[in-house]
Amino acid sequence: MATSYIQIDQYEEVARKTVDPAAWCYVESGSGQEQTLRGNQVAFEHIWLRPRMLVPMQAPDLNTTVLGTPISMPIAAAPVGFQKLLHPEGEATSAKGVGDARTLYVASSSATTSLEDIAVAASGPLWFQLYLFEPRSLSEELVRRAEQASYQAIVVTVDTPFYGRKERFWRQGYSMPGHIRKANFEPGVDPMVSSTFDWGLFDWLRSLTDLPLVVKGILTAEDARRAVDCGVAGIVVSNHGGRQLDGALPSVMALPEVVEAVAGRAEVYLDGGIRSGTDAFKALALGARAVFVGRPMLWGLAVDGAQGVTQVFDILREELEYAMVLSGCPTVEHIDTSFVESATGIRGY
Amino acid sequence: MATSYIQIDQYEEVARKTVDPAAWCYVESGSGQEQTLRGNQVAFEHIWLRPRMLVPMQAPDLNTTVLGTPISMPIAAAPVGFQKLLHPEGEATSAKGVGDARTLYVASSSATTSLEDIAVAASGPLWFQLYLFEPRSLSEELVRRAEQASYQAIVVTVDTPFYGRKERFWRQGYSMPGHIRKANFEPGVDPMVSSTFDWGLFDWLRSLTDLPLVVKGILTAEDARRAVDCGVAGIVVSNHGGRQLDGALPSVMALPEVVEAVAGRAEVYLDGGIRSGTDAFKALALGARAVFVGRPMLWGLAVDGAQGVTQVFDILREELEYAMVLSGCPTVEHIDTSFVESATGIRGY
Amino acid sequence: MATSYIQIDQYEEVARKTVDPAAWCYVESGSGQEQTLRGNQVAFEHIWLRPRMLVPMQAPDLNTTVLGTPISMPIAAAPVGFQKLLHPEGEATSAKGVGDARTLYVASSSATTSLEDIAVAASGPLWFQLYLFEPRSLSEELVRRAEQASYQAIVVTVDTPFYGRKERFWRQGYSMPGHIRKANFEPGVDPMVSSTFDWGLFDWLRSLTDLPLVVKGILTAEDARRAVDCGVAGIVVSNHGGRQLDGALPSVMALPEVVEAVAGRAEVYLDGGIRSGTDAFKALALGARAVFVGRPMLWGLAVDGAQGVTQVFDILREELEYAMVLSGCPTVEHIDTSFVESATGIRGY
Amino acid sequence: MATSYIQIDQYEEVARKTVDPAAWCYVESGSGQEQTLRGNQVAFEHIWLRPRMLVPMQAPDLNTTVLGTPISMPIAAAPVGFQKLLHPEGEATSAKGVGDARTLYVASSSATTSLEDIAVAASGPLWFQLYLFEPRSLSEELVRRAEQASYQAIVVTVDTPFYGRKERFWRQGYSMPGHIRKANFEPGVDPMVSSTFDWGLFDWLRSLTDLPLVVKGILTAEDARRAVDCGVAGIVVSNHGGRQLDGALPSVMALPEVVEAVAGRAEVYLDGGIRSGTDAFKALALGARAVFVGRPMLWGLAVDGAQGVTQVFDILREELEYAMVLSGCPTVEHIDTSFVESATGIRGY
Repeated sequence: MATSYIQIDQYEEVARKTVDPAAWCYVESGSGQEQTLRGNQVAFEHIWLRPRMLVPMQAPDLNTTVLGTPISMPIAAAPVGFQKLLHPEGEATSAKGVGDARTLYVASSSATTSLEDIAVAASGPLWFQLYLFEPRSLSEELVRRAEQASYQAIVVTVDTPFYGRKERFWRQGYSMPGHIRKANFEPGVDPMVSSTFDWGLFDWLRSLTDLPLVVKGILTAEDARRAVDCGVAGIVVSNHGGRQLDGALPSVMALPEVVEAVAGRAEVYLDGGIRSGTDAFKALALGARAVFVGRPMLWGLAVDGAQGVTQVFDILREELEYAMVLSGCPTVEHIDTSFVESATGIRGY
Repeated sequence: MATSYIQIDQYEEVARKTVDPAAWCYVESGSGQEQTLRGNQVAFEHIWLRPRMLVPMQAPDLNTTVLGTPISMPIAAAPVGFQKLLHPEGEATSAKGVGDARTLYVASSSATTSLEDIAVAASGPLWFQLYLFEPRSLSEELVRRAEQASYQAIVVTVDTPFYGRKERFWRQGYSMPGHIRKANFEPGVDPMVSSTFDWGLFDWLRSLTDLPLVVKGILTAEDARRAVDCGVAGIVVSNHGGRQLDGALPSVMALPEVVEAVAGRAEVYLDGGIRSGTDAFKALALGARAVFVGRPMLWGLAVDGAQGVTQVFDILREELEYAMVLSGCPTVEHIDTSFVESATGIRGY
Repeated sequence: MATSYIQIDQYEEVARKTVDPAAWCYVESGSGQEQTLRGNQVAFEHIWLRPRMLVPMQAPDLNTTVLGTPISMPIAAAPVGFQKLLHPEGEATSAKGVGDARTLYVASSSATTSLEDIAVAASGPLWFQLYLFEPRSLSEELVRRAEQASYQAIVVTVDTPFYGRKERFWRQGYSMPGHIRKANFEPGVDPMVSSTFDWGLFDWLRSLTDLPLVVKGILTAEDARRAVDCGVAGIVVSNHGGRQLDGALPSVMALPEVVEAVAGRAEVYLDGGIRSGTDAFKALALGARAVFVGRPMLWGLAVDGAQGVTQVFDILREELEYAMVLSGCPTVEHIDTSFVESATGIRGY
Repeated sequence: MATSYIQIDQYEEVARKTVDPAAWCYVESGSGQEQTLRGNQVAFEHIWLRPRMLVPMQAPDLNTTVLGTPISMPIAAAPVGFQKLLHPEGEATSAKGVGDARTLYVASSSATTSLEDIAVAASGPLWFQLYLFEPRSLSEELVRRAEQASYQAIVVTVDTPFYGRKERFWRQGYSMPGHIRKANFEPGVDPMVSSTFDWGLFDWLRSLTDLPLVVKGILTAEDARRAVDCGVAGIVVSNHGGRQLDGALPSVMALPEVVEAVAGRAEVYLDGGIRSGTDAFKALALGARAVFVGRPMLWGLAVDGAQGVTQVFDILREELEYAMVLSGCPTVEHIDTSFVESATGIRGY
């Protein structure tokens, strides 16, 4: 199927019509009353850009690196599990589509495709997302397998000592279909996330692997400082797409304090609420080195498989190109805080 | 009837369909144009949480005390009168349900069940709410009976020198059904609230009882300081659920100034607008020791009697547990102002 | 017709159904895009009250004076012309209704009843509102007649050098019915408002009359200071009910700067957006000595003549009584700025 | 057709019904998610006016000059291309209508009528808008032809190194009709805008012409200072009607910082979101010397040709007259920042 959509929203609209309602609800919903789910997007609408004119360029250069790995743009794929809810081949297909867009894919430890199969299917750089499962040996095993399969970093999700309270999903009486299972584990094994980890976590992980460590789920300056003190190479400012703590700060509202606290000692990324390349530009202007997108990738996957995923990223790329050209930023390094109006929007929304 | 609802709102939706329209209007409505009724809830939507990660815990400990009395969570039952509007057994049933949730029940002096019958039916700790009725002998008698019946504190409602102007209720031409009467008084006796009391009230009450005194209905630092100077043990920041002074500050907006003024010299509680355990978490973060919920209890009562009440409190408990686990608060003592974004939301909404 | 309405809005709803559409449009509409018309009401919704408890009183005392004239409450009738659009007897009827409510009536110079006939019909104190008509002899004549007819003050409207641009009215193709005419002038005489007056106006008026002078239509500290320097006895903070300069500050937003600039050297009043006694309370807390209401009086007039007008004022009185009792203000002198939250609402809306 | 509309919005409503849907979409839409398109108008609703009373005048004097050229009011025609989408005679007709309203017409280099034909048809002063086409010889040729045809200034649009991402238009699958072409170029020539220009641009232009240079598309103090340093005579604060960088500041929000940075060294104008003379007044109060309107002119053109265009400008003029009379500004020079409330509206929206 050849599609020619213009906006990410179109993929959402088409996917909504084709995806199984329970799967759709699982993907779209947030936790609790969804204050944070809504806030992630609304917060971007309160940020205004300050473009600069007459900066000559042929075309903007979107190339950047994340932890030294070159990617074709500062927009990458957030780790998302259970992708077979949306496409029969699930993560193998999305990893292919993301790689074809020449950016980074972060494989979820809750994928319905094993990390090794994702590595085979992928056509670009890979990081591995780790939930803090217990027994810890399960987590340890995942780290070792990821290193073995040539993943280039471990992204530790720290905002999930328990899974969030998915009220919209539960109210419908929905549950996960039987054929959906975490493929990184033996059949019948459904590991539990753990609430027993502390900041010693990073020393333990470093004892297991030489891969750089990224911490995902930080929303405060306090935690950002601690993470840097623990030697992380990167921080993903994230509220888990509004799926963990309802009421948590929209991630883009939390970004400035994290960037300030980190003060360049680690790379800072953001996910949550990115629905256009312009949103990505705003996050970059507020100090993110790159952003991760989750749901839009899933919509592309549902609509048109790997090609749909690539197209979604190509739309985001094109929108970011427009934002850069029209703001006078020839490269992503040019995008700094002077390009955003520091209105009440960012903190006071 | 076995129910398995997920959100408090579901109880409201079901109750709305079954409760008599006049009774429903009485319960749901506020005074005046309902600016305060709306504000109580909207104010919570403007407060954002700042969660902290990697704080190990098995499960959060919600246990706390109010004036020394242990309760299983910092969420208790607000005093509400006329509960036979919602259930044939009224307060006896709700007191049972609340006690089964192992938290505090505050019996209203306008209950349709006598305070002694409530004490018999209850399965947990009890406080007694006192309206300032006149002649004062009526109030005095209630205090003595409450002490006799082993209530553990007197909660004096000071925001009701007159009953609020219930315009939505009046516009419908509704009135209270004939069989609804305040059971704490002889048939035919319908005591009036008094506007003649001053801050000497507390000395007078202390001459009547050794029970600790809680003042309910404070919204300003000025009054909070006076109350503390009068020796109260606790203060409920409250606008009476938007049923007294319309236009009064949403209670959660008033909370910070009261907490600051009290400076630890009394316990501070809050009611008004709490519709989830996350709301409770926000109030605790802003300095409340516990919160009281009124209408949600009534919805549970209407839907499923004592069991419905217990379930409502169990949902609130579970939501608070989630908020604590996902914010990194192993105990309620950990919840402080660093967990809320002090945005314009709190004061400037 | 005996009515028993609860809220002012009910009069509006009933009147809307009975009044001629063109007349209704004339009354309800504002000028331009109606930004100010809307703002007048919305601004009140952003002001929150800070009530104080345990202030003993039997009933609040609403009595006050305006320029020394006793009235039963600080809510009076704004000058409104063309009232025969709403009732066959027009201003004679409304003046009777307002006087029966024991408050002040301000007769409009554009009334469809002569000022002498209004004086005969009235049952309470009267002020006379003067448009700055030209030739000036017309204005002069009105002042002399008003003094002759025992009006107690002259209220000079200074915001009407031209009549506002009544776009909603014009878009409908409406015009004033032929039988509606300004009864203070000879048939065939339709005087024009003048844009040639300056602040020397007050010396000229003082040469004509010993009556105290009130200036109506001030929205800034600058003009307030000038008015006081010109010796006015009172200032009405007003944007003419959103009917003159569209985009002008909501009057309650302008009130604080006027009150501060006047610094007690004149009485300050407010009109615009008052729809309840609670709104009146807010204005008093921000420094108004009294408020004037226009459209609500007209709704009462349309619905039930003089009795309807009295009832509208009685509702406003009752609402103000509630606000005072429930805020702890035994008299209107007690109502000060400590009773309002000085949130962004007042200035930043 | 004789029309007698009252508000600009009426022209929009009528035009919407008669214009071809694709053409209509082209005219009305913005770029991206249209955050800026919406913001341009909403920002004006957050600005409040502070009128001053008793300033005598016969009628306000709206006459002003732009770069020394007298115009009858500080409201002029923004450059808009492709006007044959709306009327068979396109720009020739609108230029006639604008001149008849005795104000300035800015001819677009993307007009569907040649600049020479516009000059012949026009009945008032003309400026020429220059897109930075490449090859540069095309731009150079346009400048020389404009000077030859007696245009009085060159307005260089600097916000269009690429054309904006017109998502609403593209989503509909619309494209420009075949008969619509830029008449300033030979048939078959469709020049491209260039992203290779820098601030040296102005020296180059000055080598081509003695006409004063105006830069259009500035939104920041930084760029405004640079433009002044480059010797421009005027600056149009503009986001291209929300059609270039989506998310860019609403132009009226950007105006104050530009005015402050320019500090009188050049004339500052504004376009974007002006829908009434009151909006124009607000922009003037914030420091604009004149404003330009685009879409309203097109609506007039579509509804009633040259006469419709004149009527649109006459409505704007009348609204501005009202705003001036009712604010106490006898001339446009009187309109300063003291006439606007510097609320959060301006920056914090």
